[in-house]
Amino acid sequence: MALMNKVQNIVVLYGWRRNAFLLSSSRSISTFATGCDNRILKSPSLVSLDFPDVWSSSSTNYSEPVMDKLASEHTARIIDGKQVAEEIISKVANEVTRMKKTSGEVPGLGVILVGERKDSIIYVHNKIKACEEAGIKFKLTEFSDNCTDDEVCDAIMQFNVDPSFHGILVQLPLPQHLNEEKILNVVKFDKDVDGFHPMNMGNLAMRGREPLFIPCTPKGCVELLIRYGVEIMGKKAVVIGRSNIVGLPASLLLQRHHATVTVVTALTSNPEEITREADILISGVGVPNMVRGSWVKPGAVVVDVGTYPIEDKSCEQGYRLIGDVCYEEASRVASLITPVPGGVGPMTVAMLLYNTLESAARKYNFVLTS
Amino acid sequence: MALMNKVQNIVVLYGWRRNAFLLSSSRSISTFATGCDNRILKSPSLVSLDFPDVWSSSSTNYSEPVMDKLASEHTARIIDGKQVAEEIISKVANEVTRMKKTSGEVPGLGVILVGERKDSIIYVHNKIKACEEAGIKFKLTEFSDNCTDDEVCDAIMQFNVDPSFHGILVQLPLPQHLNEEKILNVVKFDKDVDGFHPMNMGNLAMRGREPLFIPCTPKGCVELLIRYGVEIMGKKAVVIGRSNIVGLPASLLLQRHHATVTVVTALTSNPEEITREADILISGVGVPNMVRGSWVKPGAVVVDVGTYPIEDKSCEQGYRLIGDVCYEEASRVASLITPVPGGVGPMTVAMLLYNTLESAARKYNFVLTS
Repeated sequence: MALMNKVQNIVVLYGWRRNAFLLSSSRSISTFATGCDNRILKSPSLVSLDFPDVWSSSSTNYSEPVMDKLASEHTARIIDGKQVAEEIISKVANEVTRMKKTSGEVPGLGVILVGERKDSIIYVHNKIKACEEAGIKFKLTEFSDNCTDDEVCDAIMQFNVDPSFHGILVQLPLPQHLNEEKILNVVKFDKDVDGFHPMNMGNLAMRGREPLFIPCTPKGCVELLIRYGVEIMGKKAVVIGRSNIVGLPASLLLQRHHATVTVVTALTSNPEEITREADILISGVGVPNMVRGSWVKPGAVVVDVGTYPIEDKSCEQGYRLIGDVCYEEASRVASLITPVPGGVGPMTVAMLLYNTLESAARKYNFVLTS
Repeated sequence: MALMNKVQNIVVLYGWRRNAFLLSSSRSISTFATGCDNRILKSPSLVSLDFPDVWSSSSTNYSEPVMDKLASEHTARIIDGKQVAEEIISKVANEVTRMKKTSGEVPGLGVILVGERKDSIIYVHNKIKACEEAGIKFKLTEFSDNCTDDEVCDAIMQFNVDPSFHGILVQLPLPQHLNEEKILNVVKFDKDVDGFHPMNMGNLAMRGREPLFIPCTPKGCVELLIRYGVEIMGKKAVVIGRSNIVGLPASLLLQRHHATVTVVTALTSNPEEITREADILISGVGVPNMVRGSWVKPGAVVVDVGTYPIEDKSCEQGYRLIGDVCYEEASRVASLITPVPGGVGPMTVAMLLYNTLESAARKYNFVLTS
């Protein structure tokens, strides 16, 4: 019953109209025996099952770390994503220079930014800066909040046909009124440096297949694990969250690396019982400090993909970023941990540049240093 | 160390040459600090990570159920896949009749069978029989064991362009020398009634997306769960095995139904500890009687996708099929269980017919009874 309450809360909180499904679904089961329901299959369409993941209020209220409980002197080793990302970007820059010398070409990235979201503007700014650093050609096409699907699709199609762009990135999330699926599907499969095309996602999921691009954030997480000597094969990995951008591809990628993967969602009861079993814990839900020290297995590796702005007037921008993981608590339990900021964030940018370089290399038959 | 032994066993047993990867992967990690390795990323290609799942010998040796340990009087309710499948096929038949009256058209299924595998021949035979029963047009194209990729691809392309075929099925597995990926990718996305095209798999994985077809076996499993009133949302589901045909799509589909899903592989240590937590347990590895009663949580729902022929001269065909699950033991613990045969098998065929019907309905704008 607790679960149904949770679901009802979702419906109430979000004015979500899918309760029709819940009713019809249970009706179809109960009427099956009486033969009143003439549908061939009882299975609903998958899209009708989709609703937003709402994490329970007990875990979503931001609360400060409980330091007095932390008697342990132990502190996890920090995974320095910033340093690794800088190193990768510098190597990408070398390859771009070499490509230019060999073929006269440089990789090009087209970026679409819609609206005025502060975080999106910052992310795009960071990507521009990194492209400049690496010598990657960059073009930003901006739209106002009230633009149409067609305007955005037209811009993508221009990048699709322009041979000097090897990667196209649509900064997400898009404003609600736009059709994300339709827009992302316009991105040419072989310029989909974000790896969000279903064809790339399918090839990421299926053994024996190789996607042209792996989504940047999960790819950055696994690259960090490998660089810090974390064995993935045979380990228990838990991914918190199942977004198309982070949770889903992270779980698929860890499976390809032979981890035993569990995906925890907002509907999982007692998620901490599951996360406490994880050798590798990746969280990507955007709920500040949700993952407490007590959620972490001693010695586990914790990768925090969440970023959430918290007002802080002492900071230059007026806010600071915090992650899904209560760092102060978790770092007393884990063996390795990524900080926020300076953990996964910079790696996402580095992987975007790498994917763009790789796309250009594929086109020009340029062999990357290996 | 147990894990590395397991992996070495795999390499030794299968003459698998990917140990090169294992060596190079560990080398890259160890040399990172010294700066000798100049690769931009340390992450290997995904295909280089693929190797066959070999279940440990302790679990793969067929052993008879231990009945004397089973003091319990409890017996699980049987999920009668045969009966449900018959009901679905009869409804599909009604719809085919209605479609023929309305549009003059019937759904058509093209099937490719390569080689002389006994099990494949039986499966194809069952599919032909079911198509005849439902009034679905059927064409079988057969090839000898030593045919070429091109021959098989040509046959698929003929089905692709023939408007009277709405579904194409390539009976798997194909002989080793054929390129399965290349062949399956030739199947037109909108005739891919098996749901194995990466585009369909990607759309199955991604929330907000709807694949044109869901792979028949997992779709049949979930249809059974729904019909037997099993709540999936919020439940812990464990899928044993991660094949592209069963394990992977089953885990993705259960996630779309909001289960908390763990995928157990041959590299998972102590799989029984994980399966004992499962409210819903789906096994699809083809290892007879691997899942013992002690692997099952009391009251769990057990779905057995495995089919394995065991010599039995008392049977008409000289063998009988047994599943991954030790039925006698598990049925004393579970609340609901599928038998082998008569559980998931017939549902796979029924879902194939349904997918073919749906494909034709989509083409002719024929509205299915709902």
